[in-house]
Amino acid sequence: MDGIRNVCDRPKNTNIKLSLPVVCFVWQLSMIILFGVFVRYNEESDTHWVDYRKENNITSDIENDYYFRYPSFQDVHVMIFVGFGFLMTFLKRYSFGAVGFNFLVAAFGIQWALLMQGWFHSLDYTDGKIKIGIENLINADFCVAGCLIAYGAVLGKVSPVQLLVMTLFGVTLFAVEEYIILNVLHAKDAGGSMVIHTFGAYYGLSISWVLYRPNLDKSKHLNGSVYHSDVFAMIGTLFLWMFWPSFNSAIADHGDGQHRAAINTYLALASTVLTTVAMSSLFEKTGKLDMVHIQNSTLAGGVAVGTAAEFMLSPYGSLIVGFFCGIISTLGYIYFSPFLEEKLKIQDTCGIHNLHAMPGVIGGIVGAISAAAATNTVYGDLGLENTFDFTGPFAKRVPTIQGGYQAAGLCVALCFGIGGGIFVGLVLKLPIWGDPADENCFDDEIYWEVRQTCIKATQLKIHSDS
Amino acid sequence: MDGIRNVCDRPKNTNIKLSLPVVCFVWQLSMIILFGVFVRYNEESDTHWVDYRKENNITSDIENDYYFRYPSFQDVHVMIFVGFGFLMTFLKRYSFGAVGFNFLVAAFGIQWALLMQGWFHSLDYTDGKIKIGIENLINADFCVAGCLIAYGAVLGKVSPVQLLVMTLFGVTLFAVEEYIILNVLHAKDAGGSMVIHTFGAYYGLSISWVLYRPNLDKSKHLNGSVYHSDVFAMIGTLFLWMFWPSFNSAIADHGDGQHRAAINTYLALASTVLTTVAMSSLFEKTGKLDMVHIQNSTLAGGVAVGTAAEFMLSPYGSLIVGFFCGIISTLGYIYFSPFLEEKLKIQDTCGIHNLHAMPGVIGGIVGAISAAAATNTVYGDLGLENTFDFTGPFAKRVPTIQGGYQAAGLCVALCFGIGGGIFVGLVLKLPIWGDPADENCFDDEIYWEVRQTCIKATQLKIHSDS
Amino acid sequence: MDGIRNVCDRPKNTNIKLSLPVVCFVWQLSMIILFGVFVRYNEESDTHWVDYRKENNITSDIENDYYFRYPSFQDVHVMIFVGFGFLMTFLKRYSFGAVGFNFLVAAFGIQWALLMQGWFHSLDYTDGKIKIGIENLINADFCVAGCLIAYGAVLGKVSPVQLLVMTLFGVTLFAVEEYIILNVLHAKDAGGSMVIHTFGAYYGLSISWVLYRPNLDKSKHLNGSVYHSDVFAMIGTLFLWMFWPSFNSAIADHGDGQHRAAINTYLALASTVLTTVAMSSLFEKTGKLDMVHIQNSTLAGGVAVGTAAEFMLSPYGSLIVGFFCGIISTLGYIYFSPFLEEKLKIQDTCGIHNLHAMPGVIGGIVGAISAAAATNTVYGDLGLENTFDFTGPFAKRVPTIQGGYQAAGLCVALCFGIGGGIFVGLVLKLPIWGDPADENCFDDEIYWEVRQTCIKATQLKIHSDS
Repeated sequence: MDGIRNVCDRPKNTNIKLSLPVVCFVWQLSMIILFGVFVRYNEESDTHWVDYRKENNITSDIENDYYFRYPSFQDVHVMIFVGFGFLMTFLKRYSFGAVGFNFLVAAFGIQWALLMQGWFHSLDYTDGKIKIGIENLINADFCVAGCLIAYGAVLGKVSPVQLLVMTLFGVTLFAVEEYIILNVLHAKDAGGSMVIHTFGAYYGLSISWVLYRPNLDKSKHLNGSVYHSDVFAMIGTLFLWMFWPSFNSAIADHGDGQHRAAINTYLALASTVLTTVAMSSLFEKTGKLDMVHIQNSTLAGGVAVGTAAEFMLSPYGSLIVGFFCGIISTLGYIYFSPFLEEKLKIQDTCGIHNLHAMPGVIGGIVGAISAAAATNTVYGDLGLENTFDFTGPFAKRVPTIQGGYQAAGLCVALCFGIGGGIFVGLVLKLPIWGDPADENCFDDEIYWEVRQTCIKATQLKIHSDS
Repeated sequence: MDGIRNVCDRPKNTNIKLSLPVVCFVWQLSMIILFGVFVRYNEESDTHWVDYRKENNITSDIENDYYFRYPSFQDVHVMIFVGFGFLMTFLKRYSFGAVGFNFLVAAFGIQWALLMQGWFHSLDYTDGKIKIGIENLINADFCVAGCLIAYGAVLGKVSPVQLLVMTLFGVTLFAVEEYIILNVLHAKDAGGSMVIHTFGAYYGLSISWVLYRPNLDKSKHLNGSVYHSDVFAMIGTLFLWMFWPSFNSAIADHGDGQHRAAINTYLALASTVLTTVAMSSLFEKTGKLDMVHIQNSTLAGGVAVGTAAEFMLSPYGSLIVGFFCGIISTLGYIYFSPFLEEKLKIQDTCGIHNLHAMPGVIGGIVGAISAAAATNTVYGDLGLENTFDFTGPFAKRVPTIQGGYQAAGLCVALCFGIGGGIFVGLVLKLPIWGDPADENCFDDEIYWEVRQTCIKATQLKIHSDS
Repeated sequence: MDGIRNVCDRPKNTNIKLSLPVVCFVWQLSMIILFGVFVRYNEESDTHWVDYRKENNITSDIENDYYFRYPSFQDVHVMIFVGFGFLMTFLKRYSFGAVGFNFLVAAFGIQWALLMQGWFHSLDYTDGKIKIGIENLINADFCVAGCLIAYGAVLGKVSPVQLLVMTLFGVTLFAVEEYIILNVLHAKDAGGSMVIHTFGAYYGLSISWVLYRPNLDKSKHLNGSVYHSDVFAMIGTLFLWMFWPSFNSAIADHGDGQHRAAINTYLALASTVLTTVAMSSLFEKTGKLDMVHIQNSTLAGGVAVGTAAEFMLSPYGSLIVGFFCGIISTLGYIYFSPFLEEKLKIQDTCGIHNLHAMPGVIGGIVGAISAAAATNTVYGDLGLENTFDFTGPFAKRVPTIQGGYQAAGLCVALCFGIGGGIFVGLVLKLPIWGDPADENCFDDEIYWEVRQTCIKATQLKIHSDS
């Protein structure tokens, strides 16, 4: 690793005047061509819906999947663009990069995700076209979430071109691991504890490990927050927290599935807030609270209840999951993040290990246990079949076996995250991507026109405070 | 009152390193145990929904209450966490406390509310369990709204432990008064003018009265806004304003009930904005506008139309309600708040008397009058029965009588608010809760790690303005 | 023009203590009277819905239009109040005016729009009443969007009284041109590329042209952003961007119409982000990005796909539209805005020419072409009839003819925008409206009580950064 590191350590050139436009144009043009060849509307978003309704005896337009999922879709959309974007604005001089690059990465990622996931899940074999509807849009947003989680680990240390490369590979890896976990293993993962959070977090952490910067201290004066940037970050936190029930229920089964997933997530998140506050107060001098914990650890319960959200986890079960995640995530920020940086050489700007990696793994385990423990008594015969999709080739599967496959799914997510991250990290170490020098990290000046930092007194007529 | 005050005036110790974690852990553990004993999914969020559908001849999953209420629920959720939270960020140095403690209080309160309201409204007597669904989540959010209103009166002057105690009692009182008003008196209150706003506001004002601080002047330099904190507060204002139609329609009757409640609220709020601007301009020198009014009084119409939102108030009726509330609320900020503080010794940080108390009472009166004036001609026979639920034991009730019960409901809300507030205020005067000294009020430094207030020039390379 | 200009150039008096309250009160009272005479609930928001359901064999409350459109309505509502409001907070000292006057204008405009659009579209000829429901609320929000776009051109240069006058005329003109385009010409315009964006933008630009200020340089020190104001503006950008699929689908046909409009908009917007970033980087030194482009040009794709959103534009067609709009809009900011200001004497504060005018015209053209190119093969017989409403008096119309009428619609929007704007601009030049002097533009001080710009060190105990 060190060998490669030295090879790549040359004076940094952050001029991306050529590379960024070229990458954006080439990739967008490729998207247009591939969409032209492959992507069409599905039967619910096509003008033939009126015929489809008649053929399938659908009595009302309200039965269109659009009405089941559009409200959740919009909430998820807010989480991706405002939630993730503003959560990362906490750095004092990297708010443009946080919100702006998050925007760029997500806008590119959702297009590539529609194609990659489409080939695996929505390909119409009669005409070789991908047929898209509202569920595809949600899944594309989900897929991008994995890459945005990974961005959290490298925030402030990479160029936008690197982020786009990271997203291209990340979405590709995501689509494959998702196919293996959901289709081959037939594991359930409504809220993506494994597929999204575990994968995304280890993908980002592995990249950050490969891109380790021994002299990052040079920019440590910018690696922190100021008062107002912490308030901006709370916008991100709250929109993630509030809309997480929609995230976990967005692609759950119609009816009780979506309903139950929303309830479980609502409860897990509420519980997490209290234990996060408790731990934050307990470990700071004089019991003061730390904004870093409130901004991040309060969300851990939503991550951890993702896989099991659709299951009969029961309300108190959700509270218990949230309870422990608040504790573990806050302890992670206090003890584990310094350890990661000093011993494992992983510099994790946003602490995604504490917010996504550990809670994601917990979520996978909770999912496996609660799947294995499912019984006909609790679920009902039909309910069990519906919840776990024990139909078709999987008609004979029983809950205990399902639990094993759930656990296998977690391992797949881990392998893809770590393996993929190391590979992509090596690609990103090539000295051609315009990443900033150690002393210029966490600084918007490098990639943005920054006009003025604050108003000068001479520009204003008022100086006094009545 | 003065006697008790003196007893409690000792040097303040704001160290909450013990009390806050203990309270959070004990209460969260209690929630887990109580949820384990009492709370289960209802028939629409349970896997047996598939059987329930068949038994009840429900043709489609879209008939699940989830699809009627989830969009409104999410809007209400945003109002509780972002709306109330950011509305209170207007203070120059209390944004962390505003958003953060609002978050803590709400996350705890919704859990306790699910239990308290559940025992009163959703208890399944066959097995002694509370059965929850989406409507319970909305009601829990509503219940917490009462406590967050109360928080507005004491913002910056209490410790988080006090807030949690206030919430524990507040939710309990709320559940009882709600049961009396909605079930015993059978009054209607879709948007909670009485149940939520009147109760919450008088609860908070009474607490603030008991906790009167004669020397609050010592921290008056922090009891005001700065430019950016006023912009942050507008985020809260606007999300409250925009989503208020969802608030008032969230638990209204399916179909026309929700539809009409949204329309009435939309109109009342629009009208309020114009009269607020007019009054603000009229009473400031040279006609300038005051952000305090724009942030708060513009919302008064939503409060006042709460009770009658579901009624045939008619569009112009809603405009009239909004018209007067904008005027009264703005006048309240100009004349009544100083009077409250100087004469009645009630220090009301956010002016909840003008935003919630007066409009809430107006809302109760409007509700009583419009209920009493309801006729078969306007409502239709079935419409009248549906709107006022004149069924079962109340099948014989007529609109004029209903008007009386509505008025009685308002009195119950007032009594519970004032009585409960005085009691809880006395509890909070005990010198064990870690509240700040008079000179440390409105300062995040007391309960939060505040790293840095603004960026120093030496940290940046750019100083000049092109 | 110059003649009138000189006549009107007198010392400015920005005291609006009389005019603003009078205008607000008179207009709000007029609204109440007009609503009292004209506006009632429609059959879906009236208590007689229960009877209506029976008469029309509607099996479930979920068939109420409310459930088809309410989620989209709330998203549109957020775009109007938070989206437009915060997008304009980018100026360093005009955030109060941006968010606050946007709030005032929209709250007044929606009331007047309900009346004006109601007379044209929702008048019940049996009793002469306007019957309103959720679709009317959405249309009122749409109508106001036109005026808020126009506000972008004159941001910082006009008084709130002028804005209200601009809105009164703007809504009136809007309702007429909308009636001509949608009803007389029977053009389709789901997302309002022509009706909203083209009209609104040229209306604002024409007003700005008439109100040209040759000495605006005097306040150029305030005509720019600071770091935090750019972050606030991103809140506006992102909520507009995220909810634009709801905007374009809000009043589209039930079922596949709404579904398809959302998909097309989602894709067009994603594509725009990449080309905007590419162009921004390409034209700045060392490839840095400019926040002005990211805040505005990323939205151009949503504007341009408005008319055709409901059509079978196909996914790649949407990407192509977005692709070109990102390029054109960014080039507009770089080259066309300076040209507009220097040569055409149009001072366009927010660059609405690049964000709304050009993309709006493109949208109209795309709509005309894709309508003309519609075939039975692609749409299906019923699909074609449904999508273009080839029923009643228009049963004989064919796609190629429809294309011509679409193009005619675009011309109508342009004429109303430019003609109306010049007329209203002349009205606004009268020296009675309290607009600011050239040296006081872009300054909140003129119309707002501004307490304090930032916290003084002496007010805080902490000064050091650990």
